[in-house]
Amino acid sequence: MKNLDLIQRWLGDSHLAGLIVPSTDEFLSEFPPAANRRLLWATGFRGSVGLAVILRKAAVLFLDGRYLRQATEDVGEAEIEILPTSLAARRGWLTRLLSPNSRLGLDPRLHSPTEVTQWQGLAAEFGFGLEMLSENPIDQLWSEARPAAHRPQIIDYSVRYAGETFQAKCAAVVDHLQATGLHALFVPDPEDVSWLLNVRAADVALKTEVGDWHVVPSCTSSALVRQDGRVFWFVDADRIAVDVVARRAEDITILPPESIAATIRDVARHGSIGTDLRRTSAAIAAILEEVGIWRDDGIVARRRWRKHPAELQAARRAHIIDATAVVRFMAWLTRVVPQRAVSEFEAAQKLDDLRGEHPDYKGASAPIMSASGPSGAQPHYIPRASVSRKLNDHPLFWIDSGGQYPGGTTDNTITLAVGTPEAKHVLAHTLVLKGFIALATTRFPAGIPAFRLDAITRQALWREGMDFPHNTGHGVGNCLNVHEGPYIGRDPGPLTMVPIEEGMIITNEPGYYAEADFGLRIESHLAVVESHLPNFLEFETISRLPIDPGLVDFDRLSLSERQWLIDYHRTVLRDLEPMLDALSLEWLRQLVGVFIQAGGFPDSHGASAKSSAVPPTVGA
Amino acid sequence: MKNLDLIQRWLGDSHLAGLIVPSTDEFLSEFPPAANRRLLWATGFRGSVGLAVILRKAAVLFLDGRYLRQATEDVGEAEIEILPTSLAARRGWLTRLLSPNSRLGLDPRLHSPTEVTQWQGLAAEFGFGLEMLSENPIDQLWSEARPAAHRPQIIDYSVRYAGETFQAKCAAVVDHLQATGLHALFVPDPEDVSWLLNVRAADVALKTEVGDWHVVPSCTSSALVRQDGRVFWFVDADRIAVDVVARRAEDITILPPESIAATIRDVARHGSIGTDLRRTSAAIAAILEEVGIWRDDGIVARRRWRKHPAELQAARRAHIIDATAVVRFMAWLTRVVPQRAVSEFEAAQKLDDLRGEHPDYKGASAPIMSASGPSGAQPHYIPRASVSRKLNDHPLFWIDSGGQYPGGTTDNTITLAVGTPEAKHVLAHTLVLKGFIALATTRFPAGIPAFRLDAITRQALWREGMDFPHNTGHGVGNCLNVHEGPYIGRDPGPLTMVPIEEGMIITNEPGYYAEADFGLRIESHLAVVESHLPNFLEFETISRLPIDPGLVDFDRLSLSERQWLIDYHRTVLRDLEPMLDALSLEWLRQLVGVFIQAGGFPDSHGASAKSSAVPPTVGA
Repeated sequence: MKNLDLIQRWLGDSHLAGLIVPSTDEFLSEFPPAANRRLLWATGFRGSVGLAVILRKAAVLFLDGRYLRQATEDVGEAEIEILPTSLAARRGWLTRLLSPNSRLGLDPRLHSPTEVTQWQGLAAEFGFGLEMLSENPIDQLWSEARPAAHRPQIIDYSVRYAGETFQAKCAAVVDHLQATGLHALFVPDPEDVSWLLNVRAADVALKTEVGDWHVVPSCTSSALVRQDGRVFWFVDADRIAVDVVARRAEDITILPPESIAATIRDVARHGSIGTDLRRTSAAIAAILEEVGIWRDDGIVARRRWRKHPAELQAARRAHIIDATAVVRFMAWLTRVVPQRAVSEFEAAQKLDDLRGEHPDYKGASAPIMSASGPSGAQPHYIPRASVSRKLNDHPLFWIDSGGQYPGGTTDNTITLAVGTPEAKHVLAHTLVLKGFIALATTRFPAGIPAFRLDAITRQALWREGMDFPHNTGHGVGNCLNVHEGPYIGRDPGPLTMVPIEEGMIITNEPGYYAEADFGLRIESHLAVVESHLPNFLEFETISRLPIDPGLVDFDRLSLSERQWLIDYHRTVLRDLEPMLDALSLEWLRQLVGVFIQAGGFPDSHGASAKSSAVPPTVGA
Repeated sequence: MKNLDLIQRWLGDSHLAGLIVPSTDEFLSEFPPAANRRLLWATGFRGSVGLAVILRKAAVLFLDGRYLRQATEDVGEAEIEILPTSLAARRGWLTRLLSPNSRLGLDPRLHSPTEVTQWQGLAAEFGFGLEMLSENPIDQLWSEARPAAHRPQIIDYSVRYAGETFQAKCAAVVDHLQATGLHALFVPDPEDVSWLLNVRAADVALKTEVGDWHVVPSCTSSALVRQDGRVFWFVDADRIAVDVVARRAEDITILPPESIAATIRDVARHGSIGTDLRRTSAAIAAILEEVGIWRDDGIVARRRWRKHPAELQAARRAHIIDATAVVRFMAWLTRVVPQRAVSEFEAAQKLDDLRGEHPDYKGASAPIMSASGPSGAQPHYIPRASVSRKLNDHPLFWIDSGGQYPGGTTDNTITLAVGTPEAKHVLAHTLVLKGFIALATTRFPAGIPAFRLDAITRQALWREGMDFPHNTGHGVGNCLNVHEGPYIGRDPGPLTMVPIEEGMIITNEPGYYAEADFGLRIESHLAVVESHLPNFLEFETISRLPIDPGLVDFDRLSLSERQWLIDYHRTVLRDLEPMLDALSLEWLRQLVGVFIQAGGFPDSHGASAKSSAVPPTVGA
């Protein structure tokens, strides 16, 4: 019997007309551990963000644009309707299928308070009841084949990578509590907890079809810091490695997760409590609401996003290790594709294997996107073994992937011409590259909200009537979730309005996607660094991935853009030289030579562009 | 006795501890007629935006950054404290000076509902009472010397300028009401009413010290459109010119302003009402709240901001007329300054006089800003006869001014080197010019919110650690208020989030201001036009004002920037040639020649820049 049928049969036996199932878990995580992926279990949908409403005889999946197409492959369309995530779509479906006075169940541990308020609004509007479930029926039904409970061992995160002891970090939080008059701070976000206490999960990995493991090293746990310096960590004690406990025994009280409510109630008797509302579940928010004064406070995330110099150094090292695998992959690919068929799936697996040759590689930082030609028109395309194009059938190929390394997390996209590109491919790639360089070289006032930089990557594309349907970039965790604040995005929102500050790591990832035809993207990581001008910041590109000169129309580049490409590729070569095998190194040298040659003759219009349009396959 | 004393004595005799006095009037206008400028009467503050709180023995004026300096000249600092407009400053002052349980009076006709809610929040926080006044004490006290009641004659606005009859515009509103299920639309904004009914005020002018009259031709009146097509116009019938009444008698019911409340109550019995909340006073909002279902609807403003092709054509004509005066002024100034002393005040008066030589000039579109050297470091500096620098004392001078013409409104800033500029002046001007050209030549997806374009004018300045503390641009009314939506601004807000659409007119006005040293700005109007690429828009610069080549470092300009300057100045010359006197024309020809020469020798670095650094005074 299918899981959806199990839920619908359960609904038939209950007083509920339906059940609301989100992709998030108890920690409102973007990538919950396998045992918490209730939406995947219920519907088969593999994407990271979505929401299902399951009624006794109908079901719907509300998804954002990037997943609308993919989802039809994942779920049986006959049984589950797929609709965009807009409020209008939700309204339409509810009007059509929900009879008035029926009741929908919702697990408040899995939703943000904002979402619960939205559902309450819809319930009032359509006259249905909303029931807060204290037990989730999926947890009862999901017996067989449920992944082992999510209890990875918790290990120490070296201060060599962290840059600061957990005592120093907690002391800074205490200073903040004193300055703002809060009695305590509840820390609901596992990434915040991992950063604050200098711990990581040893083996939190999600099995993926392509590549092997998607690793999210944050400890699924929460904490509370009191103004007097006492720290409570809500986590199963037996998950913690012995040395971790020993080192923290003096400073930290370890409590079982079940005691969160009681602890909050106790602490609230002495003063007000802060919590990061962005990651606080409606269930926890209800407790805070009940005990009295509390307010939104994202201090831990805001400090975490500003990396310590030691963290930046560890990230730079991770990028060199990672780029070594990617360059070997690029050299391999340009050698192999002319000789035999290579699928998107095989290419992704090969890159994961090459990364795995370095002992520090812990696994992928996100499921690998590997897209040839028309596949690449979907910005979030993930190939499956059963559905995987041949790279040989189209000149364009892009791969978006990254690794978890001690102290660093990478997430990069390269686009390669594996055949002879058409003019439209070269044009799109050149315009994307111009946007990429524009952001990489921009300087800006310290502390401006991130959204203000978004248009910079788009101007060259706009000029030709082109654009891309996603944000320009996102913050990147260090040995944590690859997505964090701030977002350099189009719309003002909690994450795009975060001020950009020194030490942050943010992606630079403009792209272009031509419906059903082709797509491409260039993605690197930028570290936010001081400039020589007071109160102005600039970016340091810390990725070390080459650009394919065969996809560049040098006539469209300014002298300073060409010079940037030369300087950047010289740095790539310098840093990767000792890491590469002779064959890959020779391939990289030739590639860098094309940039130097194109940049060196600024006045020979046409000639330089023609010679550089030869893809780097030539030398390999 | 001073007006402030009058108010404080009145407070002493009343049960109120204080009175809140905003700069806005019953129509929440930015530029209320003289008889409605209660804040000016109470405090002497001449700026357009501010808020006073007057207690029996203390008073404060909350002002935004641009006015903090100016205000100290306007008001007696000893009696009125001047503080920034932030909520924190408001809190601090209230805590310090307001005793608990006292009551503050507020006239709900002069505030937006949002402001009243804010005051209610503060009242709850600090434990004071807020009393909604049905009569404004200032209206009782302000007997002597109050300007004649604001009753200008209302005249027809030709369909030649409007492009559409008022019947067609009202029919479009009716279509909108039917489509959105509203029974009626209340139109509280005088600019909307003027546009919708094709009327203007004949003689609404504010006396200014410099220049003569600041003209705001919108009719201070409101209206209501019912879904059945009936239009109610709330205005004193005797203000309307006979022909205006005759042409509208069939379609429009004229009612006295006092009948708004009764009409809304009557209409509300049949269905819900829309109103533009941005311009609805708390007094009107309270009536809508009382009668039941209503919602925010800014349809009239949104249509008004998208100009009809006939409106664009009228605006283009107004810019040519206006630029003729400005170019004559520039030629005059460069002739006169080397010979004798010229003050900021005289310069402004001269430009106003030159504009006045064209029969179509109706008056200034805003008080004239005319700033030499250090004055110019204040972005909103307005000279007074008594405080006015000599242009001869500093090489930099800028003037921000514009006119009201039949069918068009201008508002432009030119910066001139009236002496030999220093390198820092040329650098700042060149970077501002680069931003100016970047926005003028940008192309962008139709309908993106205006704030997304803001960073484009700043990138060149940012690169050198510089910025400017105001928005990039604002929409411009046609023969209406010079400020309207959308704003190309830094912060997301109701006006910066307005989608940019074809037909809008928006200013392009980057600047640079070096504290207490110098300042400069370049401002032109852009019309939003279709591009040859589907779903992409671009700008047409419709101003015809020359740039001073003596303030341009051509070495810092790209070839395409130089080419844009050549093309633009050729257009300026072509359009102004028949309008100019021989002396001014010769001056303009020489100026244009400098751009052509500089652009023509892209490879002769240094040489071209040196020759162009000679200010245009040379030939005059």
